[in-house]
Amino acid sequence: MGIIRTEETICAPATGSGGAIAVIRVSGAQSFSICGKIFFPLDKSIKLIINKSFKVIYGDIRSGDEIIDDVLVTIFRAPHSYTGENSVEISCHASPYIQRKILELLIRNGAVAALPGEFTQRSFMNGKMDLSQAEAVADIVASTTRSAHRVAINQLRGGFSAEIGNLRSELLNFASLIELELDFGEEDVEFADRKELKTIISSVNDLADSLAKSFLLGNVIKNGIPVAIVGKPNSGKSTLLNALLKEEKAIVSEIPGTTRDSIEDTIIIDGIEYRFIDTAGLRETTDIIENLGIKKTHEKIDQASVILLIDEVTDDSDSINKRANAIREMIMGSEKRLFILINKIDLSLPQRLQELEENILTESKDVLLFISAKGKIGLDQVRLELSRVIEKERLNSDGVIITNIRHYEALSKVSESLSRIEEGLINNIPEDLIAIDLRQAIHYLGEITGEITTDELLGNIFRNFCIGK
Amino acid sequence: MGIIRTEETICAPATGSGGAIAVIRVSGAQSFSICGKIFFPLDKSIKLIINKSFKVIYGDIRSGDEIIDDVLVTIFRAPHSYTGENSVEISCHASPYIQRKILELLIRNGAVAALPGEFTQRSFMNGKMDLSQAEAVADIVASTTRSAHRVAINQLRGGFSAEIGNLRSELLNFASLIELELDFGEEDVEFADRKELKTIISSVNDLADSLAKSFLLGNVIKNGIPVAIVGKPNSGKSTLLNALLKEEKAIVSEIPGTTRDSIEDTIIIDGIEYRFIDTAGLRETTDIIENLGIKKTHEKIDQASVILLIDEVTDDSDSINKRANAIREMIMGSEKRLFILINKIDLSLPQRLQELEENILTESKDVLLFISAKGKIGLDQVRLELSRVIEKERLNSDGVIITNIRHYEALSKVSESLSRIEEGLINNIPEDLIAIDLRQAIHYLGEITGEITTDELLGNIFRNFCIGK
Repeated sequence: MGIIRTEETICAPATGSGGAIAVIRVSGAQSFSICGKIFFPLDKSIKLIINKSFKVIYGDIRSGDEIIDDVLVTIFRAPHSYTGENSVEISCHASPYIQRKILELLIRNGAVAALPGEFTQRSFMNGKMDLSQAEAVADIVASTTRSAHRVAINQLRGGFSAEIGNLRSELLNFASLIELELDFGEEDVEFADRKELKTIISSVNDLADSLAKSFLLGNVIKNGIPVAIVGKPNSGKSTLLNALLKEEKAIVSEIPGTTRDSIEDTIIIDGIEYRFIDTAGLRETTDIIENLGIKKTHEKIDQASVILLIDEVTDDSDSINKRANAIREMIMGSEKRLFILINKIDLSLPQRLQELEENILTESKDVLLFISAKGKIGLDQVRLELSRVIEKERLNSDGVIITNIRHYEALSKVSESLSRIEEGLINNIPEDLIAIDLRQAIHYLGEITGEITTDELLGNIFRNFCIGK
Repeated sequence: MGIIRTEETICAPATGSGGAIAVIRVSGAQSFSICGKIFFPLDKSIKLIINKSFKVIYGDIRSGDEIIDDVLVTIFRAPHSYTGENSVEISCHASPYIQRKILELLIRNGAVAALPGEFTQRSFMNGKMDLSQAEAVADIVASTTRSAHRVAINQLRGGFSAEIGNLRSELLNFASLIELELDFGEEDVEFADRKELKTIISSVNDLADSLAKSFLLGNVIKNGIPVAIVGKPNSGKSTLLNALLKEEKAIVSEIPGTTRDSIEDTIIIDGIEYRFIDTAGLRETTDIIENLGIKKTHEKIDQASVILLIDEVTDDSDSINKRANAIREMIMGSEKRLFILINKIDLSLPQRLQELEENILTESKDVLLFISAKGKIGLDQVRLELSRVIEKERLNSDGVIITNIRHYEALSKVSESLSRIEEGLINNIPEDLIAIDLRQAIHYLGEITGEITTDELLGNIFRNFCIGK
């Protein structure tokens, strides 16, 4: 983005492709006059430019004498609009031709095509929301699960900004006292009570720390948990995948008009999304020779947080232990989890299962389950154990959760600075060094909410938005 | 569809997938009370159920204590809505989760999921539009070119219905006079002036005929013109295809936010869409052995209206003539057109071109062009000649064009009946037989505008709509 433009009146389609109707957004000082040139209300007494805010008007979009579409136009007067500027929303038929034509007419009459995120950026620039709220907008639009949505909407509501704001004002307070001390130079006065400073720094640090830690959970909520299915050929990997996905699809398709085609290989358990990675191979009807230890399996395990190792009830326990051990070695030291799933139990006698249970070695973090993917036995247990993989206590509390890598990095830097101050206070280092670290902590907190911004920072944030938002 | 329900309040997403915002439509007697249970205006003094029509309200959608989204809600009071019923449009963030959740809340509070086309069907049932206008709605939503759009919007505006209505009322007039004659039984009176009847039948028949004939052009406008590219391996078929498509893409991508990915292999010239059929083979880097006469080429030519035969400047004119003749034999008696394109002219001397021009045999309908697909020579000429393939005079006149196969079939039956009457009048056949044919003609004209309908007819029409329209 680079340069931030505010003079132009911008326009873009705000809705997706397909559907019956589409909405085109226009925002900027010239919105009403530009739209007035192409929109003709059915009730000729209505003048767009002097019409009331929040009012819908029915009429035609015309290009010269040609009628392009009959549309509903909604007027939003500054500052009571999403962007805080004069805005118009044109609700037209969803034809690609009509949308293209209306955009073309708007541009020909003085509007410019909006860049990704430019509407939300203007909302931020006009003080309608702070930066972390603006970032939450993109997360809300992308949310596919209840948890992801709840975290994002909480952030949009400013829950997150409030905590950061509190941290920052406490530090600002102390910073000004410390700066005052510096002004007095060598007079050796102490305006800032060191003991109080220590207490507050430590509590602020705890909070910044726990926010930063919540990023791990937040990331899972936002992006889902990657799951790998591995095992020898014909062990039933694709049957298990299909069985899990099929149950999921049945649930989703209850509500008409909502399909999940685009997020094919995922299931949602308790509001958390589980993504099966690299399932293309599993889909093929002829089983690809895939053994543990080959590069592909390594890569899958690298990407996954949970590894489902599928073995057969007819395998001997030594070979099962050998495969499980190979995986344990690969994931050692990480938070990754191993599920050993013994498949095809409908083909065996109970004593065989007992025998395997006794002889398969597991570690405390492992899960051992006996299933039949084909017979749909034990699938609920697999779902239950998957849902236990993450500690979700925070999710249902009001605790604030970070989902944004930019916030996470800023908070980590805040933590670093504060830790240096804590250390410095113990070692009685001079005020001016403490002041530097305080300023740094305050700076990074300000970057999160947008009290401190650069064009580059803004450009990075908004270019990840879709057009029309 | 079968049963037509009118008591239920229906809901559906009206916008496509993706995008920044989405619109959910609610229509029916209970719209306001159902939405009032889940929508909470920011301004608490606003009561949804008594709010003004065409007014937008800002507030939250809630499920119990949980905020689902902040939305804009628009109120439309009967009869001033698309359906003619009380309606609500909810404009929310485009997240799949949010849309699913809002639909779920609406359904839980008494709405039912709308069937495809049910909103437009209600509009028809409530007299907001006639049947041919309702059908035009689906065409408008699907229109990708200027011509397709213009024909559809003309139909929506009732231009088509007006002509049909005129035809029908003239016939109804005569029918009642003829029926009167029948009432008088054997008294041999003539209320209906036979001479006048002949004149009117003949002019009505001409009009019905020309409308039916316009279907050929209408079909081209709506569905595009199928073009086949054929020729021997390495003659430059895929280079030509890519060159034509590339120019097209450059034009389209000027307006941001509008891509044409879904209609990959088409170009638009003068508002008419040209579809290159079966281009998958052309896309492959290794040229498939494809000779004239093999089954695949036969099939392509069968489906196409224009056949581009690519030959090379180095081919001798006898072999070119032989290939062209083979195609001419296949398309004999049809309206199909043959373009002979001599490719790679940048590799030859001018006298070679003159030589070929003298020796290549063409028929009056053929087009012979010298091009270089790689060097982008002569491509404008190809586009120009393609644009001349259809007689587009009607397109720019106000002439009514039929695009709907149902209308075409009904009009054909009208023509049949009227021709029988004309014949009957010449042969002085009894009134009662003329009356039967008159009734039939009137019936079929009524089916087009919906004055005569059956549940089955309605079901067939509306099930082809998308949900939310």
